[in-house]
Amino acid sequence: MNSIQQSFSVRFTYPVHFTEHLFEPANPLLLNFFKRQHTEGFQKKALFIFDEGVIPYHPQLPAAITAYFATQNVVQLIPEFITVPGGEQAKNDPALVDRLIAAVDQYSIDRHSYVVCIGGGSVLDLVGYAAAISHRGIRHIRIPTTVLSQNDSGVGVKNGVNYRGKKNFLGTFVPPVAVFNDFQFLTTLDDRDWRAGISEAVKVALIKDPTFFERMEADAHALAHRDLEAMKHLVHRCAELHIQHIAGGDPFEMGSSRPLDFGHWSAHKLEYLTDFEVRHGEAVAIGMALDCLYANRIGWLADDDLNRILNLLRTLGFSLYHPALDADNSEGILRGLTEFREHLGGRLTILLLKAIGRGVEVHEIDAELVRQSIAFLRETETQPV
Amino acid sequence: MNSIQQSFSVRFTYPVHFTEHLFEPANPLLLNFFKRQHTEGFQKKALFIFDEGVIPYHPQLPAAITAYFATQNVVQLIPEFITVPGGEQAKNDPALVDRLIAAVDQYSIDRHSYVVCIGGGSVLDLVGYAAAISHRGIRHIRIPTTVLSQNDSGVGVKNGVNYRGKKNFLGTFVPPVAVFNDFQFLTTLDDRDWRAGISEAVKVALIKDPTFFERMEADAHALAHRDLEAMKHLVHRCAELHIQHIAGGDPFEMGSSRPLDFGHWSAHKLEYLTDFEVRHGEAVAIGMALDCLYANRIGWLADDDLNRILNLLRTLGFSLYHPALDADNSEGILRGLTEFREHLGGRLTILLLKAIGRGVEVHEIDAELVRQSIAFLRETETQPV
Repeated sequence: MNSIQQSFSVRFTYPVHFTEHLFEPANPLLLNFFKRQHTEGFQKKALFIFDEGVIPYHPQLPAAITAYFATQNVVQLIPEFITVPGGEQAKNDPALVDRLIAAVDQYSIDRHSYVVCIGGGSVLDLVGYAAAISHRGIRHIRIPTTVLSQNDSGVGVKNGVNYRGKKNFLGTFVPPVAVFNDFQFLTTLDDRDWRAGISEAVKVALIKDPTFFERMEADAHALAHRDLEAMKHLVHRCAELHIQHIAGGDPFEMGSSRPLDFGHWSAHKLEYLTDFEVRHGEAVAIGMALDCLYANRIGWLADDDLNRILNLLRTLGFSLYHPALDADNSEGILRGLTEFREHLGGRLTILLLKAIGRGVEVHEIDAELVRQSIAFLRETETQPV
Repeated sequence: MNSIQQSFSVRFTYPVHFTEHLFEPANPLLLNFFKRQHTEGFQKKALFIFDEGVIPYHPQLPAAITAYFATQNVVQLIPEFITVPGGEQAKNDPALVDRLIAAVDQYSIDRHSYVVCIGGGSVLDLVGYAAAISHRGIRHIRIPTTVLSQNDSGVGVKNGVNYRGKKNFLGTFVPPVAVFNDFQFLTTLDDRDWRAGISEAVKVALIKDPTFFERMEADAHALAHRDLEAMKHLVHRCAELHIQHIAGGDPFEMGSSRPLDFGHWSAHKLEYLTDFEVRHGEAVAIGMALDCLYANRIGWLADDDLNRILNLLRTLGFSLYHPALDADNSEGILRGLTEFREHLGGRLTILLLKAIGRGVEVHEIDAELVRQSIAFLRETETQPV
């Protein structure tokens, strides 16, 4: 009896908007989105989930949202605003997934309704996951509030939570229906979060766009001194490169290559070894410095390129050394290589730079050269405060 | 600042194989699949999950699988075979999802490895869900063991579990990487499960393929008397129509139309009202009879077509009435309409037949005509034992 070959494509589309003061009455962006999605005969609802860390800096936000929705009847606003803790703890507590699913049930949020999340990357990951598994996928809208989430994770297609301390062990690939990047949220970030988000922009420039790297070199002092116009350009270009990478490659990562993980094998481990005291972007800055030193030592990355990269990261204010790199004669951080290999499915794949804007994958890493690179950072960098 | 429009397509492909004695050494089908998927440098693993209901009828299966995998080294068989309860209880116990995720963790099943499920539709739904949310999606292989799962749910793209008694409240759209329909499993089904699976074939013939309906009329006695050759044809054609429907339409149900739900609004409710004593396929047979009587009463379906449909269902051995239809003056079953509307997102959409092979959607149902249709079934049908 003949076998049947199933084969189909699913098209995913979503806009990523850049704006300010999203919920001011004069800003029609969000409302216009809902109007475009309106379907005759369906009363769609919107359930808002807040990152707890956002409210103290934007205490007027709930009232503004209530007022914004009061002017229309395209979407029914659920009056309860749910808040969840921000940062990595959002992804470590299984009770939060349950709480969000219970809210979906309580308010009868169906597949044509919306879950809207306002927050940093971790909360977006949590909420995106809860939305993705409820009713086989409720439409979710992301309103990222940090540099990192506006230029990277928030505009992508992944969600997830941790499981028994294992990062993103549970999750899915499900795109949002829309992303609204409101730059005003960036003005209230603390200095560490402002800076940390820049490292993913450096990363994507290093592997994809040398012109963007040059622009960041030119803007480095402005960025370090919290110039919003410079940051707007950085967020937009980084988001654009991220989006192009997803669309042009393997959006749901069915294959084995993941070049956007540059600098990440040690970064993930460093976050873990410091119990997430070092933030993701800070860890990525160190991870990139480490892999660039390594690439230089194996004769790939020229001295001049290496120095430009280290200088940019330092000018942006990153500390490029942390004592956890040396813990246990660096065995701790090197275990990150093994875990990264397991995460990738058995074969280690690490992107290293031949030059700024040009990366090539390797499948082996020499531990001794990693230790030498760590030693260089220890000797040349000021210890972080 | 310009908005960015993200847009990409993801291609999904998977084979649906029809075979017998899948794990006999002489049957290369499964092994060839693994060989085709082999990637240099990756040691892929296979974790088997069994429906508890399968083992007593196929006690030799675990040893046969162990022997089958012992002959090769393309895939590493995880020596522990996990068993989970069959039937709806598989989807009602959240601890089972946790148990499967814990096994994925314990055996380091990564995104390039496989979870292989052998069982009925409920267990396939449970295992598919656990696989879909682990590591953002582990490859899963389905080996359906019932008529219903071989011709319908097992070859599709959905998975899911229940939540607080709500059917498929949690789930995702994630296709398997392969389906292997082994007809030998059908020979050990009890009569109710053999028959129940046929109703989805009647359903898909009624809305898509009058020729297939005629073939079932011709085969009705043979099917009722467990003729395996007649069943093989039915399973193959039904699976084929189901697969074509998915590929040709809206695979992940992003829109609002779901025509394959024919006969299902009352069926879902009837299962629930009888605490799942009435099986899904049995309930669908009743649900189709009800909606065909209704379509006849509103002047759509001709008497001749109606009688052919009722006769086929009766010849196949279905009971077309259950006392739960009349409970609470039919208010119980009619609440199924409201719940179906909510499930669809606010607008009721019911497919009714104009003729055999031709369905048209309606958005309103007259409760009194439903009650009359129920009365007809009550008066003309023998009560089920």
